[in-house]
Amino acid sequence: MFSMLRIDTATGETKRENFDTKEYLLGGRTLSSRLVSQEVPAICDPFGKYNKLFFCNGVLAGTTVSSSDRLSIGAKSPLTGGIKESNAGGIVGTRMALQGLRCIVLEGAPAENDGWKVIVIGRDKVEISDGEFLAGKGVYEKSELLVEKFGKKAGCITIGPAAEKLLLASGIACSDPHGVCSRYAGRGGLGGVMASKKVIGMVILADGEVKPDFVDPEAFKAGSKQIVQLLKENPVSSLFTKYGTAAMVDICQSLKVLPTRNFTQGTLPGAEKINAQSMYDIIKERGGDGKTQHACMNPCAIQCSNVYPDKDGKLLCSPIEYETMALMGSNLCIENLDVIAEMNRIANDAGVDTLDVGAAIGVAMEAGLAEFGDEKAVIELMEEVRNITPLGRILASGCKVAAKVLGVRHVPHILGQALPAYEPRGTKGMAMTYLSNPMGADHTFGFTLRDEDDPTSKEGKVELSKKFQVIGSRMDAMGMCNFVRYSVRDDMTPLLDLIKARYDVEISASEFDDFVKETLRIEHQFNTDAGITAQDYRFTETFYEETQPETGEKIDITDEESAQARQW
Amino acid sequence: MFSMLRIDTATGETKRENFDTKEYLLGGRTLSSRLVSQEVPAICDPFGKYNKLFFCNGVLAGTTVSSSDRLSIGAKSPLTGGIKESNAGGIVGTRMALQGLRCIVLEGAPAENDGWKVIVIGRDKVEISDGEFLAGKGVYEKSELLVEKFGKKAGCITIGPAAEKLLLASGIACSDPHGVCSRYAGRGGLGGVMASKKVIGMVILADGEVKPDFVDPEAFKAGSKQIVQLLKENPVSSLFTKYGTAAMVDICQSLKVLPTRNFTQGTLPGAEKINAQSMYDIIKERGGDGKTQHACMNPCAIQCSNVYPDKDGKLLCSPIEYETMALMGSNLCIENLDVIAEMNRIANDAGVDTLDVGAAIGVAMEAGLAEFGDEKAVIELMEEVRNITPLGRILASGCKVAAKVLGVRHVPHILGQALPAYEPRGTKGMAMTYLSNPMGADHTFGFTLRDEDDPTSKEGKVELSKKFQVIGSRMDAMGMCNFVRYSVRDDMTPLLDLIKARYDVEISASEFDDFVKETLRIEHQFNTDAGITAQDYRFTETFYEETQPETGEKIDITDEESAQARQW
Repeated sequence: MFSMLRIDTATGETKRENFDTKEYLLGGRTLSSRLVSQEVPAICDPFGKYNKLFFCNGVLAGTTVSSSDRLSIGAKSPLTGGIKESNAGGIVGTRMALQGLRCIVLEGAPAENDGWKVIVIGRDKVEISDGEFLAGKGVYEKSELLVEKFGKKAGCITIGPAAEKLLLASGIACSDPHGVCSRYAGRGGLGGVMASKKVIGMVILADGEVKPDFVDPEAFKAGSKQIVQLLKENPVSSLFTKYGTAAMVDICQSLKVLPTRNFTQGTLPGAEKINAQSMYDIIKERGGDGKTQHACMNPCAIQCSNVYPDKDGKLLCSPIEYETMALMGSNLCIENLDVIAEMNRIANDAGVDTLDVGAAIGVAMEAGLAEFGDEKAVIELMEEVRNITPLGRILASGCKVAAKVLGVRHVPHILGQALPAYEPRGTKGMAMTYLSNPMGADHTFGFTLRDEDDPTSKEGKVELSKKFQVIGSRMDAMGMCNFVRYSVRDDMTPLLDLIKARYDVEISASEFDDFVKETLRIEHQFNTDAGITAQDYRFTETFYEETQPETGEKIDITDEESAQARQW
Repeated sequence: MFSMLRIDTATGETKRENFDTKEYLLGGRTLSSRLVSQEVPAICDPFGKYNKLFFCNGVLAGTTVSSSDRLSIGAKSPLTGGIKESNAGGIVGTRMALQGLRCIVLEGAPAENDGWKVIVIGRDKVEISDGEFLAGKGVYEKSELLVEKFGKKAGCITIGPAAEKLLLASGIACSDPHGVCSRYAGRGGLGGVMASKKVIGMVILADGEVKPDFVDPEAFKAGSKQIVQLLKENPVSSLFTKYGTAAMVDICQSLKVLPTRNFTQGTLPGAEKINAQSMYDIIKERGGDGKTQHACMNPCAIQCSNVYPDKDGKLLCSPIEYETMALMGSNLCIENLDVIAEMNRIANDAGVDTLDVGAAIGVAMEAGLAEFGDEKAVIELMEEVRNITPLGRILASGCKVAAKVLGVRHVPHILGQALPAYEPRGTKGMAMTYLSNPMGADHTFGFTLRDEDDPTSKEGKVELSKKFQVIGSRMDAMGMCNFVRYSVRDDMTPLLDLIKARYDVEISASEFDDFVKETLRIEHQFNTDAGITAQDYRFTETFYEETQPETGEKIDITDEESAQARQW
């Protein structure tokens, strides 16, 4: 039995419902995308009363299994106009599980001029209280105020000032194990959707929690240990333990797919200044709050996160991820980790996605609003975002809208969502994946890069992308961290056995993959119903017309090929 | 034989081609939409090298027939993403006809950092010369510089600083009989398309012109006289002679469809301060340059245009049209014609469409950037547009993009193009028409308002809209002024007889309507191929959810009904 808590934000009515189907069991994206598809009219205004915001944890949330407590947040996206699932680490998924909740849904919408609300959820209680004390404040301050009021152990969710203004690049921040709302479901403008419900904070209390019970505790314990073992043995996830995702800087530089100068180039001359080793050395040297290894949720055997300290050793930003280092670093020709960390910090405080805003700044630089590589200018542009000036609003609208306003033609996006940190002309597998994602371009979907024999060739990339679409989506489908996929890509049994030991429900590997593929079908259908067509799954014309200098490549993928890669 | 001049803006190559088909004979939108459909890939970037910009005059251009010299400009629209024909009065259509040209097309695209060019076209010559002397200047100054160089009689085309920055609400300005580039093909962002070709000015010289010859000069002369007679006798067009389009203020106020307060209301308390009589009285009282009656092209028996003088009698703006009075007046709760005239002047100088920018300012006011009715603020906002500040860029991107950046949900547009000046909830005929227009919402298409027995009811409005879609499109189809339609709506013979007397080509009324309907089919097909779907032909959700206070009406038109109204 899995509980869903419905909260009507217009009336304040709440309702708990119970379900026992496998969709609810799996949770995560399996559940969120089904709920969006079933309950949200595809043509609705993402900021209107017909949109709903679903918070779903996964099948193993609240247990002791490593990296299993991601929170999937689903809705119709104001950024892409299609279906959206964006997931975050942190402790909210755990708290929900320990309160017996698989899903919380915010429904309806109050009048636009209604006051802000905070929703507090505990064992058998839901309180909707005044949230005006948070209004207009940065996420760091909001986070402190929430912790002050509800304690560090509470799972807190909040949004930044950009979301309050319904800006398209705004995310939802979830609290990490230290009680800081720094784990973002950043993509797709879901922060704005939460704001449209006039909910500025949501708190899942750590009161009266009930520990999960297990059908076969011994088997579960053994299985849980096995996952840790698999993660530690795996060369990819174990590399992440030392260097975090920053390890990708050197890999992408060597493959010539490190986004540089608004995605016009694939190598940055000073890439080594912002690579994993540089970051590692700086953190080690500065000491203080700095951590080269850090868990976004507990338990986690990978601990790819980090804490980047300032010159005095005080926390400047946590975490800094590769995608941010590329989109706010190499893509802007910024070769200084302190600058990237400061930008990241401001983005977190404003409550915006670092990829979408980084890409928008790249577009602004191409429009001549600042010089590539200008460290002072990029901080100033981020301050514009933080202060929600007209220019800040443009940048916090993501690169597609920014490009329209700024008159730029070379724009790194699919469905309005910024490309992640892999220049698509240099990796046709990733290009194919970008063109296949119902969520818009993203790095957690169909990650082919490590498995492309010839990255610049499109041969066989439909199949390769589809293979990795499934491999990656399996993790989202059950609320696991994406990095677990490396350890189970050829054999999902260890995870499926854990489900059996926990619930006594058997799901075979092929049945599980059916859920994954059916989810993709549902998502693509929603997009079609929302008016998204094959013509939307294209790069801007420049990617087809202009060669990437390092590889001499253009996008040569046809609409027919990308359509095949979306066919499930 | 009808000549088309092709100019490759990348290479500077030019080519004259001759055609003798009826599409070329009719010219206008019949020709421009066919050429866009045949030669422009629907999926192309509107600012890229595959888009083309077609300038087509009409079948009777260059003759003595009243109101027959409109210039149809066609391309893929950067504003709507679909096909676009926007037409303007002025003398360019005439000059082209007298140089033996039915169509000029700008093809290809130079590099983005290429210098600006001016193209000079005379009898048997095309010169592409440096245009940097015009760069960054306002349209009024550009216009003066062009007249200085090429004389008042030359037909000049230019764009404003907003177009130079590829902003979506930028239009193309054509010279009027006094040599001022004040006649706008304003809609659809075609100014930006011209800028993407790096063409900042185009001049059709008045040298060595050849007068048209007539197969039956006597019949033509008689037919031409008959048109004047029909226009003078017609109650609608003759009303326009005295008051211009401003006559619509009182009509719309009484029907409760005068857009007010960002299209949330349909009546303005002080509407009489900005109505036709007020404008008439001010112009008469101030004298000087002021004119209550004025022709945008020669000859014209309607002369609906005007010259609005400032307090010293000096030309402030010409013309001021009803649509501007509503979108920049009532819609912003501005009850002062001097303020509207000043806004209009700045819009003309910046080179932006008054409807799209007026609607964007309404959205900005709803976002709280200024108070409705604040006369000082609206001028300042227009100065932002003129100075291309970040906020000015937002406003010059039209209301749909502005609303995304400013976080506003009630947005008056279809396909990104601002609704014209008829609140759709109060006139379901116009609402149906907005939902049917392949060009995005517009006032020159399917004008039902004068013929709706019960404007608030949707009954019979599919048929009514379709009837008037044909009646209105007939005029565009042959390059006639839209206001001629009142005189020939039940009988096109007078115009078709003129074609026969001029060319000895017979086109029956039904054959002509076949052209009109086929044009609509072609246009809708282009949009479909460009990825525009039924979901794009919707008002924002608020129009379906919130009642217009004066009429108690919402939009109740279904997607099926609007699809029928687009079916030809």
